[in-house]
Amino acid sequence: MHPGNPYELGLDQNPANHVALSPLSFLARSAQVYPHATALIYGARRQDWSQTYARCRRLGSALARRGVGRGDTVAVMLPNVPAMFEAHFGVPMSGAVLNTLNTRLDAEAIAFMLEHGQAKVLIADREFAPVLHKALAMLGARRPLVVEVDDEAVAPAASPLGELDYEQLLAEGDADYAWQLPHDEWDAIALNYTSGTTGNPKGVVTHHRGAYLNAANNVIAWTLPHHPVYLWTLPMFHCNGWCFPWTMALVAGASVCLRRVDPALIYPLIREHRVSHMCGAPIVYNLLINAPSELRSGITHKVAGLIAGAAPPLAVIEGCEAAGIELTHVYGLTEVYGPAAVCAKQPQWDRLSLGERAQLNGRQGVAYPLQEAVAVLDPATGQPVAPDGRSIGEVCFRGNVVMKGYLKNPGATAEAFAGGWFHTGDLAVVHPDGYVKITDRSKDIIISGGENISSIEVEDALHRHPAVLAAAVVAQPDAKWGEVPCAFVELKPGAQASEAELIDFCRGMLAHFKVPRRVVFGEVPKTSTGKIQKFVLRDRAGSRSAIG
Amino acid sequence: MHPGNPYELGLDQNPANHVALSPLSFLARSAQVYPHATALIYGARRQDWSQTYARCRRLGSALARRGVGRGDTVAVMLPNVPAMFEAHFGVPMSGAVLNTLNTRLDAEAIAFMLEHGQAKVLIADREFAPVLHKALAMLGARRPLVVEVDDEAVAPAASPLGELDYEQLLAEGDADYAWQLPHDEWDAIALNYTSGTTGNPKGVVTHHRGAYLNAANNVIAWTLPHHPVYLWTLPMFHCNGWCFPWTMALVAGASVCLRRVDPALIYPLIREHRVSHMCGAPIVYNLLINAPSELRSGITHKVAGLIAGAAPPLAVIEGCEAAGIELTHVYGLTEVYGPAAVCAKQPQWDRLSLGERAQLNGRQGVAYPLQEAVAVLDPATGQPVAPDGRSIGEVCFRGNVVMKGYLKNPGATAEAFAGGWFHTGDLAVVHPDGYVKITDRSKDIIISGGENISSIEVEDALHRHPAVLAAAVVAQPDAKWGEVPCAFVELKPGAQASEAELIDFCRGMLAHFKVPRRVVFGEVPKTSTGKIQKFVLRDRAGSRSAIG
Repeated sequence: MHPGNPYELGLDQNPANHVALSPLSFLARSAQVYPHATALIYGARRQDWSQTYARCRRLGSALARRGVGRGDTVAVMLPNVPAMFEAHFGVPMSGAVLNTLNTRLDAEAIAFMLEHGQAKVLIADREFAPVLHKALAMLGARRPLVVEVDDEAVAPAASPLGELDYEQLLAEGDADYAWQLPHDEWDAIALNYTSGTTGNPKGVVTHHRGAYLNAANNVIAWTLPHHPVYLWTLPMFHCNGWCFPWTMALVAGASVCLRRVDPALIYPLIREHRVSHMCGAPIVYNLLINAPSELRSGITHKVAGLIAGAAPPLAVIEGCEAAGIELTHVYGLTEVYGPAAVCAKQPQWDRLSLGERAQLNGRQGVAYPLQEAVAVLDPATGQPVAPDGRSIGEVCFRGNVVMKGYLKNPGATAEAFAGGWFHTGDLAVVHPDGYVKITDRSKDIIISGGENISSIEVEDALHRHPAVLAAAVVAQPDAKWGEVPCAFVELKPGAQASEAELIDFCRGMLAHFKVPRRVVFGEVPKTSTGKIQKFVLRDRAGSRSAIG
Repeated sequence: MHPGNPYELGLDQNPANHVALSPLSFLARSAQVYPHATALIYGARRQDWSQTYARCRRLGSALARRGVGRGDTVAVMLPNVPAMFEAHFGVPMSGAVLNTLNTRLDAEAIAFMLEHGQAKVLIADREFAPVLHKALAMLGARRPLVVEVDDEAVAPAASPLGELDYEQLLAEGDADYAWQLPHDEWDAIALNYTSGTTGNPKGVVTHHRGAYLNAANNVIAWTLPHHPVYLWTLPMFHCNGWCFPWTMALVAGASVCLRRVDPALIYPLIREHRVSHMCGAPIVYNLLINAPSELRSGITHKVAGLIAGAAPPLAVIEGCEAAGIELTHVYGLTEVYGPAAVCAKQPQWDRLSLGERAQLNGRQGVAYPLQEAVAVLDPATGQPVAPDGRSIGEVCFRGNVVMKGYLKNPGATAEAFAGGWFHTGDLAVVHPDGYVKITDRSKDIIISGGENISSIEVEDALHRHPAVLAAAVVAQPDAKWGEVPCAFVELKPGAQASEAELIDFCRGMLAHFKVPRRVVFGEVPKTSTGKIQKFVLRDRAGSRSAIG
């Protein structure tokens, strides 16, 4: 504060010119401007923005009446159903923090999260009653109030899950609830536990300001129109569906809900509702492009897809382009609200071949428009690596779309923010055009005879073989070389390929030392978000460590 | 701060997760991601984002080296040329505040603003040398450093305006200048004096946070693509061109520069560069749709246009629709960074007739997506008026895209923000669908026999007459009725209409008491931004007051 600065005298913030940034404002606006536009589609159910706003206000009001407020946690264990969408607004309206639980977790993990996050309320779909009964038994007297979502699509549980059902809870609330914006835009809006392959998961705390900005970011990066029709192939429990519940409120889009990712369900929905946009991990797109072609018949419009969650194999990028799905590759992590980098397409790429474009679009790219910066930093110096496509460093982010930190974990928080950057743990190079290309997770790199081998590079080669549906490459201990690549491969239904054939195929595309020494056939284990569980495979390969 | 709130412990802001919101970040990103995409087009000149960033950094660096920094003002008097665009980045990079001067001001007004704003530097086009010599003479020893922009399109001034020219100043600076984001996003970025029809103008101070958000707002409200081609028909001195210099940096658009609004210049530019977007007051579009049709030949693509600055006459909305210009009606004021409301189109309007759509699109509408709220408040109670299309109140805004206040004018600032809303001085009704429709400026309303007459309604009727190019209606004192409407009308070139004919025409469309009692033919005086100067007309009509 310069006492002599005329621009600071009598020009303070006041209620007219300063309001907390919060995505709750988007819902209020869409309900006012487009009250009768469709917000939610689920089976035969339709819900417009006016109805959705009223239901969210009821939820916020009912929670508040039951004593839930600022600093409290409301956990949900729900598939992509309307109640999950509503929770993204109703819970923060009460002032509380939304903790979405991965629906594939086991009872121990759920119990840990409910306890660590101090959830006062748990809203859960009855599909998950068996695992939740176990988890709640572990909590004993510390169990939260449990609210059951009774979806007609699911048979009632053997014993009811909760004290009351979701519609009863809403009925307790006021559809005209005078909710308040957060006192401070830095207030927490969500708690998401990282899938953490081992050890206790970390609770990523995000804030209203970041959720607001990333919701807008999605619109700007993807040039979203007003009223898109968005298919929920991405779990909303995964970093709040990359902020898309809030993005849909900003552009008054229609959310097509979906309990599970199955091409036999997805294609009819795309056809019936003329779905315009979707998001997902490569595995989702892989399923779609490998589904029987008759499922696609009658679909003539293009669908725009964001792809992230793992570096997309070239075969997926090519397959989608051929199938009328216009992919945009984004990259991020829970700690940065989902997408925080985008492989921004350059107009001149349009003139290149499909293969060249796939190569370029397979990179993680540049900072999202409203994210401040992405950089690849040399771990030794903390300085950016040379943009030469060879020098490897760690991908780091900085900006307003970065978490507050890890809940009750100051050590991990300080480590993640060392040097004024958020450290992702992903290793990458920077190409001469400034685009970041991930080479590996730091723990996934294979070191063979002193040479670094990118497991992703080997996987990319395998994915180009026509018989391969999924491939994962990990280190296998080797007396001579230290480590050598070992491949786990899942073939397409009906397709055949031998170990020798795949090794030969890789020889044609890779340097000799990068070629897998061994190929194991079978289903590749994945997390609920489509990430391959390499720690399981490392175990099977007899690798250096199952901790990874 | 609740000591017991786990979401506030060890989860503070740090350089990794909190950065000041500033539109300067957009320029840095476009220069990095799209270095060779076109940023500026001016005559034969082309400048890409990399070059533009380097020039802006030179400007910021040169200003800083000359002692300009935080709390200082840099004034510019420039048409829509590249230097004007660059000033929107280079000046705030130095930490200073950009004060754009209306290029049609007289010497007294310029001298007042330079003195009141304490400008340390003035960057000016040599076209304005005559008036600036006078203004600077009035300032005497308090004159700022004057930098002249020597545009080849303009003959050199009789005596040079400044100590140095703009290119010399840039040459003093460093193209790699390590500029800093503002310490605080609440820091001032621009100072804009309101055109104020009488009395001393007020200096509207805006901040980095608002400029950032409104730049994004323009993208979201208008569904701007990446790389639009934007024609500068709107003066950048008018609320920083509604934030579009910053919007263009966000979407890496090409700015087609333009010294003056003339259809004979505009149509060839639209054709040559395939202009996709433009903004302007109704007068701009009126000129375009009334220009000789041969100017338009060969233009087959659609142009999207934002229109604001005055309520658009129905004839303009209809004319543009017929001419392939897709208008979106926005509304705002300098105090809210330009557009702050938008007449958001409803999908169901597509099925209506042109006339019906024009009626609906002629309203000021709803809050801009990232503006918090617009409301029409009853001056007596401060409460929203009933949405009945009849109850009149004052249009008020609230949110993050509202000025800091008026420079060195705490009284006017407090008045503008009374009750936690920014008061526009515009009178409006709210239609049952929640859309705001301005009926008049509070000072423009005509009170005849106790009935309020909206001057805009009468002007709309006159504009529908085929011979009318521009019309303005003001109050004329009347012994019996208090006031009666008096119309000032400018006819299209070659068109003819008598006073009696226009009065008859209005009788067919308006209630008797609203029909102009008198019609005066001649040029209608306008401000540089296309607003009709009603205070001049009130004088001519012998109205109650020239102060208005």
